[in-house]
Amino acid sequence: MNIALDVMGGDNAPHEVVAGAVLAAREYGVAISLVGKPDVIAHELGKYDVRGLKLPIVPASEVIEMEDKPANAVRAKKDSSMVVACQLVKAGKADAFVTAGNTGGALTAGILHIGRMKGIQRPALITPFPTNTGFCLILDVGANVDVRPEHLQQFAVMGSVYCKRIMGVPSPTVRILSNGEEQGKGSQLVLDATTLLERTPGITFLGNIEGRDIVNDLADVVVTDGFTGNVLIKTAEGVGKLIRTILVEEITASPISRMGGLLAKSALRRLARRIDDSEFGGAVLLGLSNLVVVAHGRSNANAVRHAIRVAKQASDFQIVNEIQAGVHEIGASAAERQSQIA
Amino acid sequence: MNIALDVMGGDNAPHEVVAGAVLAAREYGVAISLVGKPDVIAHELGKYDVRGLKLPIVPASEVIEMEDKPANAVRAKKDSSMVVACQLVKAGKADAFVTAGNTGGALTAGILHIGRMKGIQRPALITPFPTNTGFCLILDVGANVDVRPEHLQQFAVMGSVYCKRIMGVPSPTVRILSNGEEQGKGSQLVLDATTLLERTPGITFLGNIEGRDIVNDLADVVVTDGFTGNVLIKTAEGVGKLIRTILVEEITASPISRMGGLLAKSALRRLARRIDDSEFGGAVLLGLSNLVVVAHGRSNANAVRHAIRVAKQASDFQIVNEIQAGVHEIGASAAERQSQIA
Repeated sequence: MNIALDVMGGDNAPHEVVAGAVLAAREYGVAISLVGKPDVIAHELGKYDVRGLKLPIVPASEVIEMEDKPANAVRAKKDSSMVVACQLVKAGKADAFVTAGNTGGALTAGILHIGRMKGIQRPALITPFPTNTGFCLILDVGANVDVRPEHLQQFAVMGSVYCKRIMGVPSPTVRILSNGEEQGKGSQLVLDATTLLERTPGITFLGNIEGRDIVNDLADVVVTDGFTGNVLIKTAEGVGKLIRTILVEEITASPISRMGGLLAKSALRRLARRIDDSEFGGAVLLGLSNLVVVAHGRSNANAVRHAIRVAKQASDFQIVNEIQAGVHEIGASAAERQSQIA
Repeated sequence: MNIALDVMGGDNAPHEVVAGAVLAAREYGVAISLVGKPDVIAHELGKYDVRGLKLPIVPASEVIEMEDKPANAVRAKKDSSMVVACQLVKAGKADAFVTAGNTGGALTAGILHIGRMKGIQRPALITPFPTNTGFCLILDVGANVDVRPEHLQQFAVMGSVYCKRIMGVPSPTVRILSNGEEQGKGSQLVLDATTLLERTPGITFLGNIEGRDIVNDLADVVVTDGFTGNVLIKTAEGVGKLIRTILVEEITASPISRMGGLLAKSALRRLARRIDDSEFGGAVLLGLSNLVVVAHGRSNANAVRHAIRVAKQASDFQIVNEIQAGVHEIGASAAERQSQIA
């Protein structure tokens, strides 16, 4: 198992990315190809005791910056760490590509240089979302802003397979995000996709879910278009941050509540951990012929470590082959219906 | 000033609704027509000292239930509290309609029985959303699931006028919700609407906003389609509830943190109040020839009181006439551009 890691991507690159790679190599025993500027990487590696760890350096002279326009940058910067890392995967020298860099760049590099899985129209980003008892999975959270019903159908299949293998849920339940829980509520896209989802083999589709019920464990997998999904996860992030800010403001406002805050410190820390997305390992781009894991731009070493863990698990569980089989089944079932009608 | 209040609508109707009406009549000095089953209302009113308050009972024998299909129910239940209340407004006997009942029912009753404002294609629901320093306004949060760019343009004008008058912001800033802050990021709808918004007279349009930045006071008004807006506010509600649940779980998990929670109790209460939507007065349906205020289904007396306050303010500030003028201006400006091109 070898993971191609974009060392140059992310707000805290390269130091936190290399630190995360060292942690992951030590903990999971995987080889991690560190792709980027060799001198920079060597300097960072010098800070750790890396004896016995497999952390080869793969040179790449350019960097796709956070501000770069993805499509242009991926085409122009052929020796960028993202492109070189994807080419390692394509050539079979790595099993997955992990980055904390420009999300659009990662998607574009993945699609152009790793390539779409056969039969998949639109790769989608899937990410865990916290709930009362753990988390559910949401896709698409930003790879496709405008989608058709059949794309949502493929998202449901990819999400189910991923949930089954990664979370060990035997029959994951799937719902579609809508503006009301009642059947018949939703945009035209939701209504049309519902018709398709109801007759999709291999998934357990339970209908609509509202934004407020996602936290209530009503579904293992929630499907939506990448525009709405992106608004959803970013709104959740904003609200979480707002509440933390207000909490700190109010607790430090008086000596008594400040004392209370000190006594409740470990509880507050556990709260932070349960909703902290750096434990979740970032979003995974499903639907390519190999895996791409996109960690949050502001990832620290711990978030990078978890992103590598997610890449390793997905690869261990042969997610790509499983998704391929699931998508093939939709096609076969549609063809069968066609022949019955004819 | 007279407000037509649907006494039968909401999870806590009629007791909390009547309680809220009594509070509002006392505090704001408005007349409130209590629309619903006379015996039920009389019984509830009997619990309070209402001497000197203007709280006339207006009989309506039917109720549009939370589970009713809005379009059918509004047509079938002609003597429902919602329909009768809207007819009071239409007949000029009341200045606004307030309900905590079925949102779809309120929209349908408003559109059918109060009627659209001249020139408005789609009425939209506007609601306050908490930010670091106060709140911003978001519309549409659920009246229109599928919209066209020109609808978003009208939403921006309606939202600006409302913000200017109700919040006293002289030149409210407007942004469009998207999946990235950079210009050029967004669905086709967002891109097309942006072109229109950039040349809309009377608004201060600043481009895109992401879900996570809404709390950061980057805009006074955020426009979006009713599907995405609905997902946004409900996700925020769900996340807020999740964090409260986890906070209580973690604080009560050990005796020391429980003690801390007790000491920080007033701080936690202030936190709850700052993000509690019952203080916000619900959502207002803009674009009808008079005002409709839709409070949350689970409104308590305090939320009903605030919804009545919002209706009173909007009526005091002649929001309807102001919006009419603003929308007229878009039309005039578009006609002028046409004539310059010709």
